[in-house]
Amino acid sequence: MLGPAGVITDKELLVPYSHDETEDLTFTPEVVLKPNSNTEVSEILKICNKEKIPVTPRGAGTGLSGGALAVYGGVLLTTERMNRIIKIDERNHQALVEPGVITQVLQETVLEKGLFYPPDPSSRGSCFIGGNIMENAGGPKAVKYGVTSDYVLNLEVVLANGDIIWTGANVLKNATGYNLTQLIVGSEGTLGIVTKAVLKLIPAPSKTLLMLVPFFSAEKACEAVSSVFRAGITPSGLEFMEREAIDWTLKFVKNVRIKIKDEIQAHLLVEVDGNHEDILYKDCERITEIMEQYGCDEILLAESSTEQAELWKLRRSVAEAVKSNSVYKEEDTVVPRAELPKLLKGVKEIGRKYGFQSVCYGHAGDGNLHVNIIKGDMPDEAWHTELPKGITEIFELCVKLGGTISGEHGIGLVQQPYIPIAIDQKRIELMQGIKKLFDPKMILNPGKIFYKENH
Amino acid sequence: MLGPAGVITDKELLVPYSHDETEDLTFTPEVVLKPNSNTEVSEILKICNKEKIPVTPRGAGTGLSGGALAVYGGVLLTTERMNRIIKIDERNHQALVEPGVITQVLQETVLEKGLFYPPDPSSRGSCFIGGNIMENAGGPKAVKYGVTSDYVLNLEVVLANGDIIWTGANVLKNATGYNLTQLIVGSEGTLGIVTKAVLKLIPAPSKTLLMLVPFFSAEKACEAVSSVFRAGITPSGLEFMEREAIDWTLKFVKNVRIKIKDEIQAHLLVEVDGNHEDILYKDCERITEIMEQYGCDEILLAESSTEQAELWKLRRSVAEAVKSNSVYKEEDTVVPRAELPKLLKGVKEIGRKYGFQSVCYGHAGDGNLHVNIIKGDMPDEAWHTELPKGITEIFELCVKLGGTISGEHGIGLVQQPYIPIAIDQKRIELMQGIKKLFDPKMILNPGKIFYKENH
Repeated sequence: MLGPAGVITDKELLVPYSHDETEDLTFTPEVVLKPNSNTEVSEILKICNKEKIPVTPRGAGTGLSGGALAVYGGVLLTTERMNRIIKIDERNHQALVEPGVITQVLQETVLEKGLFYPPDPSSRGSCFIGGNIMENAGGPKAVKYGVTSDYVLNLEVVLANGDIIWTGANVLKNATGYNLTQLIVGSEGTLGIVTKAVLKLIPAPSKTLLMLVPFFSAEKACEAVSSVFRAGITPSGLEFMEREAIDWTLKFVKNVRIKIKDEIQAHLLVEVDGNHEDILYKDCERITEIMEQYGCDEILLAESSTEQAELWKLRRSVAEAVKSNSVYKEEDTVVPRAELPKLLKGVKEIGRKYGFQSVCYGHAGDGNLHVNIIKGDMPDEAWHTELPKGITEIFELCVKLGGTISGEHGIGLVQQPYIPIAIDQKRIELMQGIKKLFDPKMILNPGKIFYKENH
Repeated sequence: MLGPAGVITDKELLVPYSHDETEDLTFTPEVVLKPNSNTEVSEILKICNKEKIPVTPRGAGTGLSGGALAVYGGVLLTTERMNRIIKIDERNHQALVEPGVITQVLQETVLEKGLFYPPDPSSRGSCFIGGNIMENAGGPKAVKYGVTSDYVLNLEVVLANGDIIWTGANVLKNATGYNLTQLIVGSEGTLGIVTKAVLKLIPAPSKTLLMLVPFFSAEKACEAVSSVFRAGITPSGLEFMEREAIDWTLKFVKNVRIKIKDEIQAHLLVEVDGNHEDILYKDCERITEIMEQYGCDEILLAESSTEQAELWKLRRSVAEAVKSNSVYKEEDTVVPRAELPKLLKGVKEIGRKYGFQSVCYGHAGDGNLHVNIIKGDMPDEAWHTELPKGITEIFELCVKLGGTISGEHGIGLVQQPYIPIAIDQKRIELMQGIKKLFDPKMILNPGKIFYKENH
């Protein structure tokens, strides 16, 4: 049905599909299938459902929670050939796309028409819209514009039994039955496979200013974050980076010329956008006043798009830089924004207790802190026995502060053991019940989110 | 358990609980219960679940789809005593509230702290947050700020068996398991009873300008709507009112002094808000240019809060004014914004075909048009036999245009027969499966949304 271009069984050609961007995990599927339409996806699922063959859906493989790993072998179903932007409806500010469209490609295509699709994870140059939908991806713009779920109006989904449904309608508001659209968003490929998405677009802001704000204390930087919002300003980006995150990234990325004083412990990257430059400068002045109240050092204001791109490149390369530096484990903690200083302080204390170093950075404006735990010279045994205890304590702290264990990466494979910290048994049972309703034979992305149920 | 103040069985005292704001429907419950806490709600549900007693949850009874009517008698559970604003967290821009808080009370309370809770249906002076959550209520601000679902971060819900769960976390982004929060929002009391809600707040804009724009043609008014957005402007309100809507309302409401020329067929009410008055005036200039391209008459700009309040009072009173004028039936149609002219034209054609008059108004910026069908001197027989055919055609048109049958009122009781027009059988079965998972004995709000299943 799929033709030779649609099937991979050759062991060497399977290798690129055996990992995603999650640590060093490797699981090789038995076969990779590349359907090119909703009906092909449907036919594949009908067969797999009948034969109880595991199907692991995969976008670009840029995920950070192991969601696209074929942990039980079977079929790995990639949407890479379904990469058409079917329609950009300028009249209604909507786009109809297939799941294999690269996020940045969509952004650039709609921008040519003066429109804006805000959610863009660091991997936007390679990740797929379908994967973004499945993990409810965020990115730096989420603080002002929201996450992927805020831009998904309607989804075409192939269910485990091969049925094809649309989840909603192409409208901005909908009070017609249960919200299946938002049940599919963030379901990590366990409830169905998205084959088309109707996305909301908004008018593109025409101007942007960006500030890099150095602090002598990381906690002070975190404290400054919520004050910006309390002053009535909603930046279009508010990112936090610890000293090491920038240091390592400066070594990793070429051609970024930023000098950092020895005493600087952290930076905030603050972006404002809009259509009126004078207002943006006023916002920057106000933000500067607030930052100074928290004892920041001299602020770098990036006005040109080149300078801005350089700073964003720095921020977007942190994850890769850390990865290249050491074996690591990345946690995607999220708390109410003003609790960020407590979270950071707690992470460092827990690290001291269990003997690990951490590099923290992320979307501070959303309260979403990526905690990269560095193996460095931690002994292998401690890495395997002590680290899980430390991670457990970090997640328990998140929940205590009103937060949870993943803001935008998903649970996938690697966060499964920690799910009970965030979600009590009654709620897990409801989610498992939904899983069984959508996928009674448990073929879709087995081994993800709900550990016990799928094993 | 509830004490004498918590139970009503006296027939006369049951009367106010026998109807909501939906047409002239009346269903008297056998008993009204007024729990005062999550544990009291839980105890009630445990008993009703054991004894298979229908439980109809009710907020303020302002609904327009019959959702709060006890169609099978049994228990009507009102949240009116659970009306505490438990916490306004200014640091995190969040509010923790009980479901019986009146929407306008919440709005005014948070505004005192410079914060804004945008969703406000016309009934905001009496409706409850709990009811807003259950119907995913919108209101005029939705066009810029979104609907209720966009402000619900986390819910405490009592399930049919009495279990108490929280659905999410108090965070702006969450990729931890399925989105139960948004499954509960808009579920019309059929999946559980909300006993606490964590709501997102935003900084309150400090300035507002409002324009009343008269048109010689209702279709031209509708055509102008999407052009505003295509010019990159997102108004904080963009309402449409047909001539009759304003005429009837001017008779109904006292002390609104607006003169309307005989030739005017419709008005747009356009609001912009923000913190910079000069920008708002520029937006109004640009909007005026656009409106003039669609042949508007002289625009009234309301600058003072008194003038603005007068115009909003007019808009908010339309539904009641129409109701006081004739037996009527209100449909809550919604389509992609730019399809509004086609919808309006279609509604009028369908009316001519089946012999009914309609008065249309609503949230044009969202593509959400309230179609009030007026009985007037239509014979009783035609009202009962022809009207459903006409409504069917209106809804079929909505779906054909990419829309659906309810934007913000819900399906409740009165839209049930039309559900198959918007939602195909496979999707209905998934929704019914979710219903059975949450409420296996089908005690919660029976007879709503899924007609066949609950009867």
